[in-house]
Amino acid sequence: MKSTNLFRQIEFIKEVDKLKYILRKTKLLNSDRNENDAEHSWHLALMAVVLAEHANFPVDLLRVIKMLLIHDIVEIDAGDTFIYDTQKSHTNTEEERKAAKRIFGLLPDHQASELTAIWEEFEEGQTNEAKFARAMDRLEPLLQNTSNNGGTWNEFGVNYEKVYAKKQVIAQGSDQIWRYAEQLINDSVEKGILKK
Amino acid sequence: MKSTNLFRQIEFIKEVDKLKYILRKTKLLNSDRNENDAEHSWHLALMAVVLAEHANFPVDLLRVIKMLLIHDIVEIDAGDTFIYDTQKSHTNTEEERKAAKRIFGLLPDHQASELTAIWEEFEEGQTNEAKFARAMDRLEPLLQNTSNNGGTWNEFGVNYEKVYAKKQVIAQGSDQIWRYAEQLINDSVEKGILKK
Repeated sequence: MKSTNLFRQIEFIKEVDKLKYILRKTKLLNSDRNENDAEHSWHLALMAVVLAEHANFPVDLLRVIKMLLIHDIVEIDAGDTFIYDTQKSHTNTEEERKAAKRIFGLLPDHQASELTAIWEEFEEGQTNEAKFARAMDRLEPLLQNTSNNGGTWNEFGVNYEKVYAKKQVIAQGSDQIWRYAEQLINDSVEKGILKK
Repeated sequence: MKSTNLFRQIEFIKEVDKLKYILRKTKLLNSDRNENDAEHSWHLALMAVVLAEHANFPVDLLRVIKMLLIHDIVEIDAGDTFIYDTQKSHTNTEEERKAAKRIFGLLPDHQASELTAIWEEFEEGQTNEAKFARAMDRLEPLLQNTSNNGGTWNEFGVNYEKVYAKKQVIAQGSDQIWRYAEQLINDSVEKGILKK
């Protein structure tokens, strides 16, 4: 039984290697190199470790980290969706659900259920852990774009109002981090790298 | 106080972005693209999540994951050391200690101490958490090299005895995973991708 589990887990581990090829729109800090989903997930997980003390409520950090490690895995099949895309909804599409079923389904049943539930929890964004995890996911590209002279905001013509609306989600996870983020957004307008 | 902490944490978060540029010798699965330290750390953390049930002893999974997320951060300053390098010792060099001091030192004091201690624990490899984390670090390149027709073993002329000796560390974390790894190594000899 244990060795059957192990074979399935190894298949999953091999499959998710593909996340290293899925490129995001955002670039690394002070860089024109696109970030991939695997290194993005690493960064968010580590951000959660060091920023958890700022959450609006106590969070189960292990659950937050699991969430961040797997939150983009469905993009192996479904591809990266740009957060400001007006054509495609960024939320839970049918394509992503199918991807979750296939990829988490490689694991032994108890783990497939656990990780699918954690992924759905992140997508729904209702629990404390999901709110804090989503705050991490919104903060990282803000640091990237402000370091890159506006980055994807300029590249794709995204204005202040859209950025502000999307980033406000951070406040649901941490008022403290939101105050910092809001300042960064306002500074960006002053610097002329984000248009009102 | 809280906002001072946040500024220091943000500096750390920006600094560790550089881990995405540190290339390892090993290549992604079925690929000739070198893996970087950030995506490597993501992969190991996720491996720990799905493989923890095979540890020889109960492990504090959150601590294992923190360890894996930060275990290579010193390489931002000290560079990647190839595990089969005969010139340079792979263990805790003076350079790595200096790097740990500088990089973890960006964080508020309580976190700098915590992460430095976790990093040292990984390097020493004596606790259950460190043993299991190190097993993950040895397993991933084995999956990569076997998928890449010998990969770094062939590229750098590493033979069966050296591989076997290095990989045996896996058994300290998990006998179950070691049995799997040992089989992979033996199969590699049979397939002619690892020389005796």
